[in-house]
This record gives sequence, C-alpha cells and structure tokens, in this order.
Amino acid sequence: MTNISRRRAIGMAGAGLAAAGAVQTAFAAGKAETWDLTCGVLVVGSGYAGLCAAIEARNAGAEVLLVEKMAILGGNSLLCGGGIAAPGSDLQKAAGIKDSADQLYRDMLKSGGGLVHEELARVVADNALPTYEWVRDYIGVKFDRLAFHGGHSVARSAAYMKGNGAQLVKPLVEKAKSLGVTIRSRTRLEDIILENGRVVGAVLREGFKFPDEKSGRLIRCRVKKGLVLAGGGFSQNVALRSLHDPRLGAQLESTNQPGATGDALMAAQRIGAVDIQMDWIQLGPWTSPDEPGFGVAPKIVEAVVGYGFMVDPETGLRFVNETGNRKVRSDAIVKTGHPAVLCVSQDNVGHVPPFALEKGLQNGVVKAFDSAEALADFHKIPKDAFMKTLGEWNAAIEAKKDPKFSAKIFDDTKKNAGKFYSVRLWPRVHYTMGGLAITPKAEVLGNDLKPIPGLFAAGEICGGVHGMVRLGTVSIVDCLLFGRIAGRNAAAL
Amino acid sequence: MTNISRRRAIGMAGAGLAAAGAVQTAFAAGKAETWDLTCGVLVVGSGYAGLCAAIEARNAGAEVLLVEKMAILGGNSLLCGGGIAAPGSDLQKAAGIKDSADQLYRDMLKSGGGLVHEELARVVADNALPTYEWVRDYIGVKFDRLAFHGGHSVARSAAYMKGNGAQLVKPLVEKAKSLGVTIRSRTRLEDIILENGRVVGAVLREGFKFPDEKSGRLIRCRVKKGLVLAGGGFSQNVALRSLHDPRLGAQLESTNQPGATGDALMAAQRIGAVDIQMDWIQLGPWTSPDEPGFGVAPKIVEAVVGYGFMVDPETGLRFVNETGNRKVRSDAIVKTGHPAVLCVSQDNVGHVPPFALEKGLQNGVVKAFDSAEALADFHKIPKDAFMKTLGEWNAAIEAKKDPKFSAKIFDDTKKNAGKFYSVRLWPRVHYTMGGLAITPKAEVLGNDLKPIPGLFAAGEICGGVHGMVRLGTVSIVDCLLFGRIAGRNAAAL
Repeated sequence: MTNISRRRAIGMAGAGLAAAGAVQTAFAAGKAETWDLTCGVLVVGSGYAGLCAAIEARNAGAEVLLVEKMAILGGNSLLCGGGIAAPGSDLQKAAGIKDSADQLYRDMLKSGGGLVHEELARVVADNALPTYEWVRDYIGVKFDRLAFHGGHSVARSAAYMKGNGAQLVKPLVEKAKSLGVTIRSRTRLEDIILENGRVVGAVLREGFKFPDEKSGRLIRCRVKKGLVLAGGGFSQNVALRSLHDPRLGAQLESTNQPGATGDALMAAQRIGAVDIQMDWIQLGPWTSPDEPGFGVAPKIVEAVVGYGFMVDPETGLRFVNETGNRKVRSDAIVKTGHPAVLCVSQDNVGHVPPFALEKGLQNGVVKAFDSAEALADFHKIPKDAFMKTLGEWNAAIEAKKDPKFSAKIFDDTKKNAGKFYSVRLWPRVHYTMGGLAITPKAEVLGNDLKPIPGLFAAGEICGGVHGMVRLGTVSIVDCLLFGRIAGRNAAAL
Repeated sequence: MTNISRRRAIGMAGAGLAAAGAVQTAFAAGKAETWDLTCGVLVVGSGYAGLCAAIEARNAGAEVLLVEKMAILGGNSLLCGGGIAAPGSDLQKAAGIKDSADQLYRDMLKSGGGLVHEELARVVADNALPTYEWVRDYIGVKFDRLAFHGGHSVARSAAYMKGNGAQLVKPLVEKAKSLGVTIRSRTRLEDIILENGRVVGAVLREGFKFPDEKSGRLIRCRVKKGLVLAGGGFSQNVALRSLHDPRLGAQLESTNQPGATGDALMAAQRIGAVDIQMDWIQLGPWTSPDEPGFGVAPKIVEAVVGYGFMVDPETGLRFVNETGNRKVRSDAIVKTGHPAVLCVSQDNVGHVPPFALEKGLQNGVVKAFDSAEALADFHKIPKDAFMKTLGEWNAAIEAKKDPKFSAKIFDDTKKNAGKFYSVRLWPRVHYTMGGLAITPKAEVLGNDLKPIPGLFAAGEICGGVHGMVRLGTVSIVDCLLFGRIAGRNAAAL
C-alpha cells in the first residue's frame, strides 16, 4: 500500500462515481471514444450565474456548452424581482442618496449575523456597482426605478417600473448565443468525472423530462478547461431542506420554480465538495396566500414598507419592524400563526409600480377599500385597536421616528388616510443561503478544504456569501458577479 | 452507457476513494489477499459512543475491532463532567423531584430551537433513564450527586461528588476487553471502502502519531458486518469550524482534547454521507481564562448557578440569566468583550463538590474573599453598583423570583453574605452539534437521503439530536445510547 494523497484518492472516486463497471475502466484508460461530447467550459444552469459564466468564458475564448435540466431557460432568475443592489448608481445620484460599497458591505455583515464569509461579501460589495453598469452597458438592460428593500440602510436597488427578473434573462441568453455559446435545455448534470483529482468531464442526462429521474439517456461530456456549477438552490426539495431545517416541511410552499431541487449541489457533494450553512434557509415575508408561487405581492410589499404598516388581524396591532430584514419579518409572521395584513393608503401607494398594483387588484392579492374602517371590517380586525394602531403609525410618520419597532420612515412618507389597500402575507421558502464552499475566485473547496481543480460555482448553489440572512437584490449581484468570475477562471485553465 | 443507480455509483466511488490505482483494481476484483485484517464490526473512536457500540456489538456475537487514533483511549469522554440526564432516577426520587421523559423531550426541543430532529430526540428522551440504569447496573458505575444544568427545567443529571467523565471510561474499556473486544490505539480511519454501495472495509493508518498525517502505515481492514463511526466532533479543527462559522477562529480556545478534528466525519463525507447543521457549534460558558482546556471551572459554575450571580466587572451589573442555556450565557459573555465574574457566598458554595472547590482554589481559578467588598476590590468592579446588584439578587432569593432575567432560584438558595468566592469566565469552543445525518437506528444517510448499508454513527459525530443548543449531560445519554444502538445494529447485519 503506497502512501496515497487525499486529492488523488478523491480523483479516483470521481471516476468511480461518474460511471460504473466497464465504462469506468474504459474512462480510466483514457480512451477518447468514451466521450460523447467535448467542450472547453461546461456550465450547469441557465439562471443569471450560469448565463454570465457562459458569456465570460466565451469572451475569454473557450468553447462553451451550457446545460439546463428544465425545458425552459432562466431558472429562478425568471421569477425574481430583478433588482440589482448598486451603491453609487446613477439612480441613487438622481435621488440624492449617498451610498458606498463599504455601506453595502456593512449591511451584508449585519444581516448575515456573523456567518458571512467576509472575503466573499467584500467581493460582492466592491463589485456591485460595476456589475450593475455591466448589465446596463454591456447587456443593455435599462433600469428606471430605485427601490428600497428591508434590511438595507438606504434605497439602493436598481429596479424596473414594469416587469421582473425575466427581462434580464432574455438579453443574457441572446448575448450568450450571439457569442457562440452552445445551449442545451432538458440536459441534467448526473455526475462529475475526476481524473487525478481534477475535473475532466461530466455525465449528463440528455432528453431529461423533469421530474422523471430516469428519463432521457446518459452521455459523457469531456471538459477540457473547467466546469461551472450554477444549478441554484434547493428550496423545492422538501426532503433535503427539512433534513437541514426540520421546520421547513411540506406544509410550507416555495416561491421557486419546481426544478430548484439542488441536483448539481448534490453531484458536487458526491465528489467530495464541501457544503456549508445549509440550514440557513430564507422564508420570503412578502408572499401572499391569495396567489401561488412568488407572485406579484413581493413587488407591492417592498414598495410599500416604510409607508404603510402591517398588523396581526387578530389583535389589530403592529408586531414587527416592517422595514426589517426578511428573517425578522418572516419569523414574526409565522409566530402569529396566521397571515398578516399589510395596509397602505392611497397617498402612499404611488411607490408601487402601476403594473404591479393593477395585476394585484386583478388577481385578488390587493384589496381596495374606501376607508380604514372598511379594511378592518373586511379582514375582521378589532376596529378600535386597528384605528389606534393607524393613529400611532401616522404619529410616527409625523415625528419621522417609529418608537415601537424603529421601522424606517422615508422623507416622502405621508400620513395614511382616505382610501386604503391591503395585502395578506404568509411566508414561503425562498432562498437557500447555504451551499458549496467557494473561494473569492469561485473555486469549489473539497473535503480537504482546498480547491478542487477545474471546479467552480456561482450563485445560490454556493454558501457563505450571505450568512444567516440574505438582503433583497444582493443575490442578483452575487449571481451575476460570481458567474462572471467563475466563467473567466474556468476558461483560463 | 447503462442506466446506473446512484447507490451503485456511490459504491464504485467508495472503492476508488479508499485505494488508488493497482490496489483499487485488486480490491475491485475481490482478491482476499488484499485485506490485512478482518473483523465483524469495526468501531472508530473510543469515547462513550465507541465503547458502548463495541460492547453491544460484542454482546450480539460479533467479532469487534475498536480503533482509536490517539495514544490514549477515551477521547473527550475523559474530559467531560460525566453526568447523565436521567429523568425519574433514584437520585431525583430521593430529592423529591418529579420529572419525566416527556419533560426532558420538551426541554430538548426548546433548547434546540426548531432544528432538533424530533425522532432522534424522542429516542434520547425515552431511553435516558434506562441508559442511566444500564451504566449503573451493568457497567457498575455509581452516581452520588444530583446536578442542575442550565436550560433544564429541573435538576436531573446523575453526577459524581468526586471525579469526572473519566471514571466511566475505565469500566467501559474493561467491560469491552472482558467481552473480547480487540482495541487498537494510534490507529486512524483513513477511508471507508464500499462495494456495490455497501461498506465492506476501511483503510486504517496504524502506528499513527497525532498530528502527523503521514505517520504510521496504511492497512486494509475487511468489515464483514458493519462500521460504526464514533469519532467525535471537530471543535479542535480551526479551519473546519471557521469554514462553517467564521466567528470561531483561532482566537478562541477549545475545551476538547487535541484529536477532536473531525477526521472520521470527513472520511464519511468522502463516500457521500450527508452532514447537517455543521454551523451550530457550542461555546461552553463556564470555562475560565485562568486555567487551560476544560478545567475544573465548569463543575464549580454549574453547581453554583441559581445560588450565586454573575456580573460584568466593568459595570458591576448582572447581564444574563445565569441558569439559561449555554448559548444564552456564552453569547452574553462574548458580547461584553471580557471575562465575566461569577460570585457566590460561603453559605451557597456547599453545592460544589468539595474536591472541585479545593482544586479550583489550588490552581487559582477560584478566589476566596472575606467579604463582597473585597471581591469587588480584587476584580476592580465598581463597588456601589456591585453592592446594589448583590442586594437585588438577595431580594430575588427572598422572593424566590428573579425580576431581571428570570433566573432559576432553588428552594435551598440562601442569601449571599459573609465570605465570598469568585470565578472568572470566558467561553471556549466545546461541542459541535452538527454532523452526520442519522436515522433513529443510527444508520448514516447518504447523499440520496437513504441509509448507506453497513454504516452507522453515534455521538458527537452526528447532527440533529440537539439542534441549535445542546443541554448539559444530554450528550452523554446520546453517546451511550446511540453507541449501543449502532453497535447492536451493526452486529445484526
């Protein structure tokens, strides 16, 4: 028995993992005919992270194959709000808001509660503005709205008056295609192939029909340069998420697309990649039980916090800082045991993008009332308590200071009176903060805490960037930025 | 390419992991001469969990080999306090304390903060009393003291007037040896060998000299029945613990023996075992900066909480519930930025086992004073504030109710006056709640969330039993009990 190294041992394992019996032997012998396909950089996943990785790898000269297991491209990026945290942006300047990379960094550390990998957060904060500008100038997507998201110290998210994250997916796909990236949907990563501890290929399942794990057929793809995992999180994998946090069973819905099941992450685990902080799973506090999935409610809610107020309909009282981070708000709503009611008057509702308000009124998520009393009647809120709460909130607005929960009150927040709108809120599983451990170069760490050569990851599949609580629109920077870093570094091998 | 199953694929990986090149081929061919050693059940680790697994596997008729990587047997079990949470014990009955398995279960869930795997906690709570009785009657270790530990609802820990956990290690080792268990120290688990997805052996490093990873030589051990991993936690692995929780860097010491580095856990990760909740790492709030390691302070502190009181020496004020769980107390001390001072008077110090008090006075951890004022002078505590705190605490004792932090006050808590003792406290990394995911049968879950055939785990190497916060002396039940379950089930294969 020779004194084998850990890395080499893992290498052999990868060969074993990716193919059984005779195929493994053929592979181990290095026969070229065992490969069905060859590329320079293989990217798994077609959300922001995967698309950006593909674009940058291609720009660096690599032959790039991007695979997506679902029938349509875009993953959760299709569903998200699409804003980009961008300290110092043109939108902030126009609004006279002072901000900086350092301030975003501090907000991330505060929200992350001590679990943030500071070197990763630093990369995100320092490159948030250039990432926004890259999207605006290179990809050509324009932003026309500055949004505030709970937990941020200022309004810093570049957003859209109309539309959502989907409108950034399309131009990214077009850019990738125009550069010559090959894109294959219904193609799932089954296993990663290592040789001497380095990624050299992948077993793919082509013709995959989600969720049938045995559909399609297996092929072997040679990867000459690097493999980028951008397969997303696992919010839709009830067994996996409740293994890590038993509270998050099937009784909770998810905002995510159904394919967010963590397959790529698990493939990486099987070659010895290390995952971290998998039990930090975020509930979105702004989803409504009156519509499915992510819905339109989040866009309305985040435009209204700091203007309107939220009550427990059983008591008529406010019960949490409406501008607090997602965890603070979700935990507080879940603790009451029933949906909360967010209330805002006509004078303050103008911050909601008109298309969103219209859609919410159409699908029944938003209810309109002639008065605060009518709102209370409809939701069966104790009226005296509710009117007292309204009075206190209006007094806080006048004083520009919320004595009860220190909620943020904006310069243009007006007293709530006259006609009212309401949205019922109940959290859904939204984002898995944990995932693969990476370096600032997007290299994936192995079991020996060293990078696995040839393996990169970006986006929600990674852990450590956000710690305990992710702030709204920071993941989009994370996905775009680390996708680009991963693509560049994969192509450079 | 055939449609290979995940489990089978992992099986091939294991073969690859455990041995490289020619050796792997020889193994894959099933040549008997590639084994250096054969056993029925292999147990890794010689703390409570490992010793109990070995004893039960041997009692079930298996040939048992137990390996320990360090030169001495016992692991952290040698250092711990050694109490056993035993609801309904003879000691509780003698003290007139009502308790039940259900009450322990509720305490575990409360302390675990929603992350507890309830089916595992149920097994621990329901079998805590029988486990205590097994130790008392079968192993023959007598307990002569009933102890309270922070976070428990009652005093329920069977403990010793003299000594610590080491006095249970010795009779367990003797029992194992008398039953015919083979024990090898300085023998480290390097890798686990799978065949068709089932554990069939292990690569061991014999003659290992911690921490030299290349010392000794590798041998291959065939495992005919099952492998039990009882290798403990990773509190001493600074790189690993700070990957999961970046706050726990080298600036924090650990109470653990130096070998608590998580090797066995990492070997299991390499064959696709799933770990959970690795970022929940417990600081012990009762260690003193005035002695190294675990020390004698914890025994003194836990005997004194609910009698004496703890102050921040900069303010002279109490700042936390002294009878709260470990996390509550550790977090509060760390937040002050400097060691706390625990204070108790002569009339209340009788709850400390005399040998511990004597040892503390000898090594300087405990300081004795003629008066409260002298204590304040020594520790440079603002005297007026300190005397006011003392007065408030004594009033709370008289009222049997602590209005400030709801600390538990016992029936026999006396006012603190006259001669005083103090202990300075600063937390150390003590216990890793996270680890391998197991079933109530102690089977280790693989990446596909199904048990890996032939692989069992018990004790601190596992996650999910304790959730966010482990209660004092519950891990000892956990180790003894799941060790026994793992040993029995490994032998039954």
